[in-house]
Order: sequence, then C-alpha cells, then structure tokens
Amino acid sequence: MSEGWALALHGGAGTMNRKDMTPEKEATYHAALRECAAAGSAILAAGGAAQDAVEAAVRALEDNPLFNAGRGAVLASDGTFEHDAAIMNGADRSAGAVTGTSTVANPISLARQVKDQTDYVALSGQGAEKFAREMGMPEMSADYFDTPYRREQLARAKVAQKVVLDHADETEFKTGTVGAVARDAAGHLAAATSTGGMTNKRPGRVGDAPMFGAGTWADDRSCAVSGTGHGEYFIRLAVAHDIAARMLYAHQSLEEATTAVIMGDLPKAGGRGGVIAIAQKGRPVTPFNTSGMYRAIVCQNAEPETAIFVGGEQG
Amino acid sequence: MSEGWALALHGGAGTMNRKDMTPEKEATYHAALRECAAAGSAILAAGGAAQDAVEAAVRALEDNPLFNAGRGAVLASDGTFEHDAAIMNGADRSAGAVTGTSTVANPISLARQVKDQTDYVALSGQGAEKFAREMGMPEMSADYFDTPYRREQLARAKVAQKVVLDHADETEFKTGTVGAVARDAAGHLAAATSTGGMTNKRPGRVGDAPMFGAGTWADDRSCAVSGTGHGEYFIRLAVAHDIAARMLYAHQSLEEATTAVIMGDLPKAGGRGGVIAIAQKGRPVTPFNTSGMYRAIVCQNAEPETAIFVGGEQG
Repeated sequence: MSEGWALALHGGAGTMNRKDMTPEKEATYHAALRECAAAGSAILAAGGAAQDAVEAAVRALEDNPLFNAGRGAVLASDGTFEHDAAIMNGADRSAGAVTGTSTVANPISLARQVKDQTDYVALSGQGAEKFAREMGMPEMSADYFDTPYRREQLARAKVAQKVVLDHADETEFKTGTVGAVARDAAGHLAAATSTGGMTNKRPGRVGDAPMFGAGTWADDRSCAVSGTGHGEYFIRLAVAHDIAARMLYAHQSLEEATTAVIMGDLPKAGGRGGVIAIAQKGRPVTPFNTSGMYRAIVCQNAEPETAIFVGGEQG
Repeated sequence: MSEGWALALHGGAGTMNRKDMTPEKEATYHAALRECAAAGSAILAAGGAAQDAVEAAVRALEDNPLFNAGRGAVLASDGTFEHDAAIMNGADRSAGAVTGTSTVANPISLARQVKDQTDYVALSGQGAEKFAREMGMPEMSADYFDTPYRREQLARAKVAQKVVLDHADETEFKTGTVGAVARDAAGHLAAATSTGGMTNKRPGRVGDAPMFGAGTWADDRSCAVSGTGHGEYFIRLAVAHDIAARMLYAHQSLEEATTAVIMGDLPKAGGRGGVIAIAQKGRPVTPFNTSGMYRAIVCQNAEPETAIFVGGEQG
C-alpha cells in the first residue's frame, strides 16, 4: 500500500482482440503508455501538483497518434474532428472543460486555461476556439490531426453500420478516451480526461469526458476518477460522481465503489467501459468490463506498470 | 403529506428586490407561474407521465418572455442567444440535452427528442440545430427571441461590469433558468431544465443546466432535481447528483439532502441559487439561498401555490 504520490492513466477501453495484436504492436503500446505516464510522474516525483501531473500525462497521450484524443482523434460521420477535454482539481474542486474544438493541439491544456483564467467551467465550439487564440494557442490545420488510420477506420465503420446495426465489435469503432488521475506528495488529487469522440458519430455529440460527475471528477475528500467507454451510460449513471459519493456517504473503499459501479451498475444498464481512480491512500485502481483497457500505474518507490488486457501487467 | 402526483417548477433564482416589484408586476409573475404549472399538472391529473409533464411545464416557461429560457433568453456579450436544455426520466435514467442552440423555440422538446430518437445523450451547436431540422422543428428567426428588455439588460450589464467587476447585484444580470420536476400517479419521477444562459457571458459558455448531475437529475430510487443559480458552482459541487446520492447512500430525507447542499455546501463554496426537488413521497421542496426564486408547487388534491420571495406562498 503506497501512501506517497501515485498516478494512473488510461488510453481507452474497448473490444480488443489478442489475435489482432502483434508482439510489435503490443510493445509499441506498452512503450507509449510508459512514456506518457513518465510525463506525469516526473512532475509528482519533483514535488509538483497533481493537477499539473494529470495535465502533462494527458498532453502526452493527446500528442501520440495511437490514442483517440488530440492528434489521434477519430472522425465524426462528416469526416470532421471534435475534441472534448476536462480537468478537475480535488483540492478546491475547481474545474475546466472544453467541447467541440477542432484546431487545438492539446484540448486538455485549453480546459486547464478555462479553469484557471476564466469564471466559467465549460466553453464549447467557436467560443472555445476563440478563447484558445486569446490564450496564444496556435490554430492547427486539419492535416495535423488527419491520419490515414482514422480515415480507414471511418470508412470501415460506415460499412459496418450499413451491414450490421448492432454489431458486437462496433465498440472498436465507437469509443476511446484518454485520461489520468494523480495524488501528489501533499495528498491532493486531480483528474483529467480528453477524447476525440466516437468514429462515425453525429457531429455535435457531447460525451461523458467534459461532463463533470460522468467521465471526470476529483475531490480530495473521496477520489479522482477518469472514465472511458460508452459515454452515454457514464452520463446516465453519473459514474464518476457516484463512485465518489459511495465513498463519501456509504463509506465504501475505492475498490468497493469502483467495482460496484464498473462491474455492477454499468453493465447492468448495458454500458461498457472502465475507469482509473485514486483515493487519499493506497494504489490507484483500474477496473473495466471490456476485454481490454490501455493503462499504466506509477507509484512512488515502485516500478511503473503498463497493461492492455485483463491481467497481464508488465513491470 | 401528499403521496399522489405532484409538480414543482422554478423560473429562476437571484437577487430580487421587493421594492423593485410593483404589485402589478408581482401579479403578472404569479399568474405566469400558475399558468406554466397548470400546463404540467394537467398531464399528471390525466394520468400522464412525469417526463411529459415536466416537458410541458418547461415549454410553457420557455414560451413566456418573462423567464430566461426559450423566447425570453438573455443575450451573450456579443448580442447572440444560446440556449441549453436537459430532460431526464427517473424511471430508466434516460436523458437528453442540447447546448448552444439559437433558432429552436423550445429547446426542452429538442432535448426530449435527443433522448427518445437518438443513441446520444447530448448534442451541441450546429449538430443540435441540424437535428432540430431533421425532427421538423422550424428555424425561428432572431426576432422571435429578441426583446427590448433583454437588449437593455445587456447594455446595463456591460456598464455595470465596466464600473464594478465584483458587484453584489451582478447576480441579477447573470443567472436565470427555468425548470420543472414531477412525480406521476405511477410513482415515476422526472426533471427538466432550460436556460438562455447568463447576460453578457462569453459566447460558448456551457452552464449547469445540460450537465446531468449538476443542474438536472432524475432517478426513481432517490429524487428528481432541477437547479437554478450560479451554474459553475452547481457543476463543481455536482449539486443535483449530490442530493440524490445523499438520499441513496446516507439515507437522508429530501429535505435534509437539499438543505445540506443548498443552504450549506453551496454558499460555503460561494455559490448562490436554489433547486426544486421531489422524491417518491411527500411534497416537492424548493430551497434557495438567494433573496428570491420564482416557483410553483401543485399537488394532487391541493390548491396550486406560487411564490417569489422567502416565504410568501400564494394559494
């Protein structure tokens, strides 16, 4: 049981097939997860704040085209990009979110600016873009985000939707989010989530990432949570705040609360996905009800761990 | 203690000065609140569903230029309109929201369509507008929403912000939301909230109304809640879901839970506003920590009540 600083991150949960994963591809993901985790844990190791650590880790995930956020965002049905991101500081429950941006390289840092530089909690669309320019963030061209892999994925999703409306493997096309949670040496918690949305989604769809209490929550009194999965169910169940409320009011442990929601209420309602979560004491937890979730855990005085499928943590 | 159907609605909370309220103006508000409440209670009295009743009541509030939603929406700093609305059905926790629409006469009915006709929970901006056209909702011109009173209010807010940044009466310009909660004869709960935002706000700002768990929540196991006030604090405290969680996990009554949040946690954090809330049993409650909240309560086999200031219910 670690009581020092700790960080966990996720790069999305979903239907992942071991047989589609070559050893080379798997190694690439493990290396990327380790690198993104290090971007956050370096801040914690230097005595930095949890909110700075989760922002740094999510920035690294956004910059990596492997993950559905920032640079690697998936395409909506009309071939456009829409990013959502949110950050929350458990120390004072200050919060910032942006939705529907398409020219900002690191939406999580724009969300952080909304939190720190405005009286608002959430900005959307053109208002968020305008604010990004005011904050000096360059307007990225579509080329920056446009990757051949995502184009091909959209084409496949359109074919799949035409053929089978309720295809079991649809999840592969639909979900994917990145996020981080951290506890710093001073005991403060923070959470950050960023997403490029769902492949082939209706433009304008807002998911759980920027909905505080659904996909993102942080409160020093209970826990910090970042979710990934079928966002609509995370919203309808207020997954992140429900985990916090179970700890605060029903005195459940972090393990009990996250297990009850992710392995109980969520699949019962038909929702698939997972969370990473951290409390005042102990290791972060990473429950999910899908076949895999890209994830990493770094604790003070311990070797970083990365994992993709159920079990299979790599030291 | 009524155990049959019941409905409560609000037309916004804020700094209200009795001396600014002529008897004629006050009578106009009471009549409007009664009329909007009747639009919802008529459905409950006929055995209709709670979600239909709250939609009807909020539509009536949206249609009335006295309230900051739909037709009466306030102006953002650039003189544009942005509507947000959300509806949630406690029976199955299905939910729908729209943000940033500007041509839809009744955003609450668009939110209802998102809930009933799509796989999504929330649509924003142009995507929401496009969906409205698909649902056959006419594109209203700006004239429909533009009232001389709101123009004058924006001008006054700009002057006030120039002169005093942290003016105590700023709230008058800033907040305002409409909402309804209901329990139907079958015992199901529902909540709906709609807003025209904050006068002189930054375009793109998203408040608590469409954030499920913040300004809107409904769950048959606990309660239905609609909030009004300084939305950023409602988001950071997850006000609506926190009330529900206190009932579910700490076994607090509706009165205890709403009082703890609205008269305790919210003002402690610096947030002003109120909620209307209803549970499986008993009368709706309408706590607020401002000097007034436009509100109405209708219970089966009882005379409708309307009120504006602290106390002062009119039978």
